[in-house]
Amino acid sequence: MKDDLPKGFLASSCEANFKKPGRDDLALIVSDRPCSLAALFTKNIFCAAPVQVCKKILASHNPVRAIIANAGQANACTGDEGLNNCHEIQNILATDLQIKADEILPVSTGVIGVQFDMDKWRKALKTLVKKLGNTDAEGFTRAFMTTDAFPKFTIDDIEMSTGKVRLTVMAKGAGMICPDMATMLCVALTDALMEPSEWQHYFNLAVQKTFNRVSVDGDTSTNDTIFGLANGATGIAPASGEDKLLFAGRLQDAFAKVAYMLVKDGEGARKVLHIHVKGAKTEQDAWLVARAIANSQLVKTAIYGEDANWGRIVNAVGYSGTSANPHEISLKLCGIERFKYGQPINEELENEISERLKKADIDIEITLGNGKEEYSMLSSDLGHEYVSLNADYRS
Amino acid sequence: MKDDLPKGFLASSCEANFKKPGRDDLALIVSDRPCSLAALFTKNIFCAAPVQVCKKILASHNPVRAIIANAGQANACTGDEGLNNCHEIQNILATDLQIKADEILPVSTGVIGVQFDMDKWRKALKTLVKKLGNTDAEGFTRAFMTTDAFPKFTIDDIEMSTGKVRLTVMAKGAGMICPDMATMLCVALTDALMEPSEWQHYFNLAVQKTFNRVSVDGDTSTNDTIFGLANGATGIAPASGEDKLLFAGRLQDAFAKVAYMLVKDGEGARKVLHIHVKGAKTEQDAWLVARAIANSQLVKTAIYGEDANWGRIVNAVGYSGTSANPHEISLKLCGIERFKYGQPINEELENEISERLKKADIDIEITLGNGKEEYSMLSSDLGHEYVSLNADYRS
Repeated sequence: MKDDLPKGFLASSCEANFKKPGRDDLALIVSDRPCSLAALFTKNIFCAAPVQVCKKILASHNPVRAIIANAGQANACTGDEGLNNCHEIQNILATDLQIKADEILPVSTGVIGVQFDMDKWRKALKTLVKKLGNTDAEGFTRAFMTTDAFPKFTIDDIEMSTGKVRLTVMAKGAGMICPDMATMLCVALTDALMEPSEWQHYFNLAVQKTFNRVSVDGDTSTNDTIFGLANGATGIAPASGEDKLLFAGRLQDAFAKVAYMLVKDGEGARKVLHIHVKGAKTEQDAWLVARAIANSQLVKTAIYGEDANWGRIVNAVGYSGTSANPHEISLKLCGIERFKYGQPINEELENEISERLKKADIDIEITLGNGKEEYSMLSSDLGHEYVSLNADYRS
Repeated sequence: MKDDLPKGFLASSCEANFKKPGRDDLALIVSDRPCSLAALFTKNIFCAAPVQVCKKILASHNPVRAIIANAGQANACTGDEGLNNCHEIQNILATDLQIKADEILPVSTGVIGVQFDMDKWRKALKTLVKKLGNTDAEGFTRAFMTTDAFPKFTIDDIEMSTGKVRLTVMAKGAGMICPDMATMLCVALTDALMEPSEWQHYFNLAVQKTFNRVSVDGDTSTNDTIFGLANGATGIAPASGEDKLLFAGRLQDAFAKVAYMLVKDGEGARKVLHIHVKGAKTEQDAWLVARAIANSQLVKTAIYGEDANWGRIVNAVGYSGTSANPHEISLKLCGIERFKYGQPINEELENEISERLKKADIDIEITLGNGKEEYSMLSSDLGHEYVSLNADYRS
């Protein structure tokens, strides 16, 4: 039997047949004791019913016990009926698990605007509670995948001065990925003992440096949710300043790994663009440039085609809104400087760049030349697979 | 012989073999007398060498005589060499046409960052001047097409109280089309007598309502240019207030027709999205929403797939940054209300919407419900043809 989750957490998943048969599409995680909750949500004003419910739970500052996650329907733009369904699911689980309804966090992913089939839900929840008992991270992750090509999770043991704790991060991504924040669902579990405001602080920092810096298609979804549950089952807290730094760093590393997986598996993506903008007057300026490149359809299709069409990258810098001077801007593509201080250089290395574009990871470095600030982002290419997946997602 | 151009304008085009053989790729228009110039340019900070040259000519307020247009290379991000080439082309033509170099407006379209082959240019310019004499709008337009599937031009005769004048508008579009402004080259010629500041005023108004409201891929190019040349060869000026309104209106109509053609022929586009946002608190708010929908890859691929996935449209409204309240927002897709005051309605009409999505023109109407302002935009779908065209544009 697998042993992926931190101490005190148990999981289960089952086939509720919400959309496509032959796969698990409903999953549950329960902690044997109350957890400190950290969370971040989509900024989309049409946030889904489960997001509305979870925002209230976070605001209450009360501890939580369980997460119920489904694929198939996003329960977004579903109005009052969607919200009522969410509450009914909480109530059923609360009775069966003998915990409070508002200790249960619902997350959903799938098609927007379609109501849950509650008969299927009622039946599946019974199965789910009965099966509760595994600690299989991949099993949980697979149950809330949509168009994901592979499950995304990391398992880390962190040795602090006070002892060893575990951090398990499980996510789904694929389409609709753009800051703020990466459109995805993500659950981070730890058996460390965490004071809620400290936990949320680590969380915000790590998300800011990782999930908020990836873009697949520029669309921010209705359902983006990232949860952190710390149940303290080890009784071990980060004690010294070094412990705190270590834990915060490892959390960021885990999120960075998962964020990379999200882009790697951006719908139909074959390549990961590592965009690094430096020498900027302000971080905001560097961000503007990074985002323009990350979301440019023309850049993304050129990279898909392994075409060293660096002009499209410079073009995106040009319309990004940067305050930099065109005569001070330089570009390195795949490590080769191809544009320096507003002029093309190294024409003869074009074939070498084309050769390097065949790799799966593509480095794009822009130097703006009017300051010292920087910003990095991950993006994906844009190809036929993206169109095929998205032109007919619902069928 | 064709008679497309207003009085006093002559054109020619030839095959300079800049990129692909077997097609005209260089074209010239000359007026037999000085013209009032109106112009608008890209806001991309890496504006192309010809854009830099033409901006100076516009700023001088001097009359102009000719336009030289090429396809194949955009002469953008080409540094000092690109600018020098631009000046040499002006000087050669000035000598051959016996006009001043700064009466000649260069425009270029094609690949960014590649220098002109000046030997080809010198040879082709001789041919071009020798051939000068036709008034063929389609011939001129074809010579600066890139990935355009069809030539875009309109010819209008405008009957004012003082007499009849002609307005001929010729454009190229296809990729990299986004406000501000539509990425494209456009030349409007008239034999009306126009005071420069009045001409520029009509121009700004018409562009604002047309070209600035289309989006194909959200990328604003380095070369966007739109010229208006009024040579006054008829001796007829708009005299009365009614004449002025008539002329301004017809200019806007002509630009609207060409703008529609640009989206219709967006790279690989099969459908035109007519996005109308109303009931907004401010025009800016309506614009934010229209732009988010127009640039959403997920909306554009769904429309390509003729999938009534209206949730993606509502999702884009949600992340647009609008100040509207989700509970007051409604959506009509293809004329059918599918989402009202934040709730899905008319589920049973989904098949009817799918049926209507098979058409080439798709209406998307959003009512924000917190004001009276509105904004309209045209956009295109996103499909395999776009990826194929753009993944390997340079080869």
